[in-house]
Amino acid sequence: MSKFLSENYAKLVPYVPGEQVNLKVIKLNTNESPFPPSPKVKEVLSEEVIDKLNLYSDPELKELRSAIAEQFGVTPDMVFCGNGSDDVLAFAIMGFCGAGGKLCCPEISYGFYPVYADIFGVELEQIPLKDDFSIDVNDYIGKNKNIVIANPNAPTGLALSFDDVEKIISSNPDNLVIIDEAYMAFCGESCMELVKKYDNLLVTRTFSKSHSLAGLRVGFGIASKDIIDDLNKLKYSFNPYNLNTLSIKAAAAAIADNEYYDDKIAKIVATREKTIAQLKALGFKCTESKANFIFAASDKIAASELAAKLRENGILVRYFNKAKIDNYLRITVGTDEDMQTLVDTIQTIV
Amino acid sequence: MSKFLSENYAKLVPYVPGEQVNLKVIKLNTNESPFPPSPKVKEVLSEEVIDKLNLYSDPELKELRSAIAEQFGVTPDMVFCGNGSDDVLAFAIMGFCGAGGKLCCPEISYGFYPVYADIFGVELEQIPLKDDFSIDVNDYIGKNKNIVIANPNAPTGLALSFDDVEKIISSNPDNLVIIDEAYMAFCGESCMELVKKYDNLLVTRTFSKSHSLAGLRVGFGIASKDIIDDLNKLKYSFNPYNLNTLSIKAAAAAIADNEYYDDKIAKIVATREKTIAQLKALGFKCTESKANFIFAASDKIAASELAAKLRENGILVRYFNKAKIDNYLRITVGTDEDMQTLVDTIQTIV
Repeated sequence: MSKFLSENYAKLVPYVPGEQVNLKVIKLNTNESPFPPSPKVKEVLSEEVIDKLNLYSDPELKELRSAIAEQFGVTPDMVFCGNGSDDVLAFAIMGFCGAGGKLCCPEISYGFYPVYADIFGVELEQIPLKDDFSIDVNDYIGKNKNIVIANPNAPTGLALSFDDVEKIISSNPDNLVIIDEAYMAFCGESCMELVKKYDNLLVTRTFSKSHSLAGLRVGFGIASKDIIDDLNKLKYSFNPYNLNTLSIKAAAAAIADNEYYDDKIAKIVATREKTIAQLKALGFKCTESKANFIFAASDKIAASELAAKLRENGILVRYFNKAKIDNYLRITVGTDEDMQTLVDTIQTIV
Repeated sequence: MSKFLSENYAKLVPYVPGEQVNLKVIKLNTNESPFPPSPKVKEVLSEEVIDKLNLYSDPELKELRSAIAEQFGVTPDMVFCGNGSDDVLAFAIMGFCGAGGKLCCPEISYGFYPVYADIFGVELEQIPLKDDFSIDVNDYIGKNKNIVIANPNAPTGLALSFDDVEKIISSNPDNLVIIDEAYMAFCGESCMELVKKYDNLLVTRTFSKSHSLAGLRVGFGIASKDIIDDLNKLKYSFNPYNLNTLSIKAAAAAIADNEYYDDKIAKIVATREKTIAQLKALGFKCTESKANFIFAASDKIAASELAAKLRENGILVRYFNKAKIDNYLRITVGTDEDMQTLVDTIQTIV
């Protein structure tokens, strides 16, 4: 640390992203899609577009916001786009909680929520999950604090029902409820339609998982126009041109290609179910994941040991050295072939 | 404004970017380069790279930081990259000033500095320029506040000498001095070599102006390893994957292509000098700009009126409705042909 850093940030503990590697491995550790993005992405990243990179990107992101709005049946002024959904979550927690504000989230969830609370000086209550890792919806009814919930939750993969999510939103009318639907495309029950009914709901999504574009860094939030106006106010005070021209064009092309992605998502869901069945046959406990990852534990081998042995065999999975989940592994759903290799390798190890 | 936004941000006045247009115009209002980026950029944005966008970009940005480090004769751990230099400036002012911290800058300078001070709760002193728009270096000697100075300054185009910048840095050893060299490539005296001598210096640069990549959103800062470590700590607490894979590859290819950019920069500088001479011949006052824009005023016509008339003729320039500079226009240096059209049009108007 330099002597110049503000003491506000002296004790800040940053988020630790999953390892990125160049080795020839089966990479099941950061919930990426095993499939390339839609061929439409290549088409729109033309030489003509690249030659015009001398001009600033559109700070209003009109092309992309319109494409997203069309998919979800909302108006473009209800869409905010960020440099990854991390960007959207950061602006939302900064803006709507602010220094001294209050926020709650599940104790076991996306590891970035406590980091955001920390950096923006927000008082965070982390609410324990039930023993089966499910969220007790009663904990969030009439909470009188801002709320952020990943649905499906990570790393458990468990999803709240539409009705339960609506109960949380409707019982907290004076606080913002952020539903982080990063993994929703993999067959949970989205609450997206509720953005038209409740002015306190912000639903966030990302192109990183379902749309095979983790390397493009695009996420978005959908909410009432007032909420989106506030987010834009912060964006224009921090980084007005927060998406580059290539991201705008590529993401707009991707989100319109339902045919391509519906097929890929169906494949991932089928592979997930097959792999869960195989792991259960090997004696593993697996949650009923609605995401593109599996959350699994074995009584026969410690998760940390299994992760290490898988690594020796060229397979990366994510292990969290954290109370209550330290015997579980979060395993991204790859291709059918990769997952068969995983299962075979685990069978040899166990 | 929604009822949910933190009152910290109720009075926030965002930065207003220069207008982006789709019309067929001569666009001299946002200091973009009139030339396309290096052909090397197209080469590295290959189909193979696009097909791998399903994988996260490298959060450590190793490829790009190494390419930048090589250009400036520093080590990669002295380089921080951002989603535009706005991103670098935001993290720096957030981190090193922090809420309640102190910062000073020239009264007439990049319009984003006061916005950053506002959003991060920093006490900002805006120090008047001299009557000729130059910065009085004595105002910054032993200031005992953090300092940010654009060199060359915008929108005046005037540059401080290397010796004057060093005096400011050396006389403020306990505060961070940010020298924003966004426009330095156009022939000012860079202080970059001083990052090895002083631990309180952060020099920021951008690919938006000199490298014809405004639409790519890449900027960087160079400083001591400790300063860069602090900036990374904030980045990893806000948005670890802040640059996408396309930006990383394209910027790394661009910065290595000195031959291409040296030629384009020389053209812009030559056109700037020619246009200034022509405008002076028409009775304009012009500053001795060291940037890729001209700062010009005429006694014969009000700047606001001239801007409006140029607009009617399909030429966009930037007018700032701000005390002391409201009779000046900031005119980006475009191609030789575009600037000749500008001069001819002005001649007709005046």
